[in-house]
Amino acid sequence: MNYYVMTLFPEMIENGMHTSIIGRAIERGCLSLSTVNIRDYSVTGNGRIDDYPYGGGAGMVMQAEPVYRAYEALAGRLGRRPRLIYLTPQGRVFDQGMAVSFAVEQELVFLCGHYEGVDERVLDEIVTDFVSIGDYVLTGGELAAMVMMDAISRMVPGVLSNQESGQYESFQDGLLEYPQYSRPEEWRGRLVPPVLLSGHHGKVGRWRRDQSLLRTLKSRPELLEKAELDRYDRDYLQRLARGEAGAVTPEEQSFLAKLLAISEKA
Amino acid sequence: MNYYVMTLFPEMIENGMHTSIIGRAIERGCLSLSTVNIRDYSVTGNGRIDDYPYGGGAGMVMQAEPVYRAYEALAGRLGRRPRLIYLTPQGRVFDQGMAVSFAVEQELVFLCGHYEGVDERVLDEIVTDFVSIGDYVLTGGELAAMVMMDAISRMVPGVLSNQESGQYESFQDGLLEYPQYSRPEEWRGRLVPPVLLSGHHGKVGRWRRDQSLLRTLKSRPELLEKAELDRYDRDYLQRLARGEAGAVTPEEQSFLAKLLAISEKA
Repeated sequence: MNYYVMTLFPEMIENGMHTSIIGRAIERGCLSLSTVNIRDYSVTGNGRIDDYPYGGGAGMVMQAEPVYRAYEALAGRLGRRPRLIYLTPQGRVFDQGMAVSFAVEQELVFLCGHYEGVDERVLDEIVTDFVSIGDYVLTGGELAAMVMMDAISRMVPGVLSNQESGQYESFQDGLLEYPQYSRPEEWRGRLVPPVLLSGHHGKVGRWRRDQSLLRTLKSRPELLEKAELDRYDRDYLQRLARGEAGAVTPEEQSFLAKLLAISEKA
Repeated sequence: MNYYVMTLFPEMIENGMHTSIIGRAIERGCLSLSTVNIRDYSVTGNGRIDDYPYGGGAGMVMQAEPVYRAYEALAGRLGRRPRLIYLTPQGRVFDQGMAVSFAVEQELVFLCGHYEGVDERVLDEIVTDFVSIGDYVLTGGELAAMVMMDAISRMVPGVLSNQESGQYESFQDGLLEYPQYSRPEEWRGRLVPPVLLSGHHGKVGRWRRDQSLLRTLKSRPELLEKAELDRYDRDYLQRLARGEAGAVTPEEQSFLAKLLAISEKA
């Protein structure tokens, strides 16, 4: 995977990614990362790439031509037109499934906006993917591009070791992750759950899965509607719904009743 | 606002925030940012802060005691216990409303996890807010903390100039932003929408609001359900629903019919 980031702040991208997983993967040759300074494509030749918005209003708008030239020069060098992701709150909201699907690309180009945005016409002309990392406003696209590159890189084959492969991580199976504990067994009066010390792999696995189900119910119940649940998962959720397997609220009980009725029909 | 970031990679935070809005606001004295290296609180004294997870499985877990000591040392220095945000996919999903409410705090502390997570017991003991920046998995909490600090900082009084104040920005009014255009009027055969050249402020304002409504309908219709809509907004959406104001799909028409029926009753 080769990343290219079109930005007004190349040093922010270069400094920010060094210590992350991308830094290590670049050293091992699994990934590459280059920045394109949009100012180098200023039409006026003085590095200026913004102007006032038509129709008035606060702030400045990045002009179409410098952005266009920056992408075209890159595409010319590469000999093809890679996907161009524009980071914007207007975009499709990024999630783990999108990270997996972007990870198969040979190249990805990110366009980081600043000021009040980028002239709409160049976005219409060259952008292939409009993506938002969440429902909040950032100063520019740089942090959002870094977040996407981090999440995508983890899904590129060879970047994570087998140890790290993230097989049991959040969202991998559509559920939140179970809690983790490490030494010592007792910490300031708090004990590790005894099952984790039992040495019984089957029981440990079941407890962790149940904890994932419980956490997802408590924090993000809507994720349960899309998760793949097997017979044992439904058994546990049934017991939760009947109040036999832990503290659940009446709302959670009725959510579960509806969920289980639906998933048994399906 | 004073930010403190508890991390294993202080240089990633320090390098990454310089060129952003936070860098400028720090120079002007509106914000401060300090990092706390969790390794400095290693119990074994050799900088090691992780150990194997109880119950087995891939990866390492950050131990409770170094994290606890790092926070307690900070709280001791400050003479109070500021909110401690743990960045985790298990958390409440960050949005612009949360950015606004965090921005009134005097201090915020971020705890950045790494490896397979942090011992659950210390999270139970000291964390006040579990926050996720989105439904994807990152290598560590550093980028997520940087994203949150950027979004929150913009809402801290004095950080943005009046010019930048973001009054018309995405999510401010629950809608996506309208498109922007800058010089020249014609770019590679594409024209600026004539209304923006009219000099008629009322018409420009109405066109931009309509474009915000249209974009929100096309990309994020669920946001319309929570947006504050006035009489003129509903008129425009009515015309869209009847196919009189632009291309909408049958699904969008029926969505609008339902939305308008509900919002008129309310």
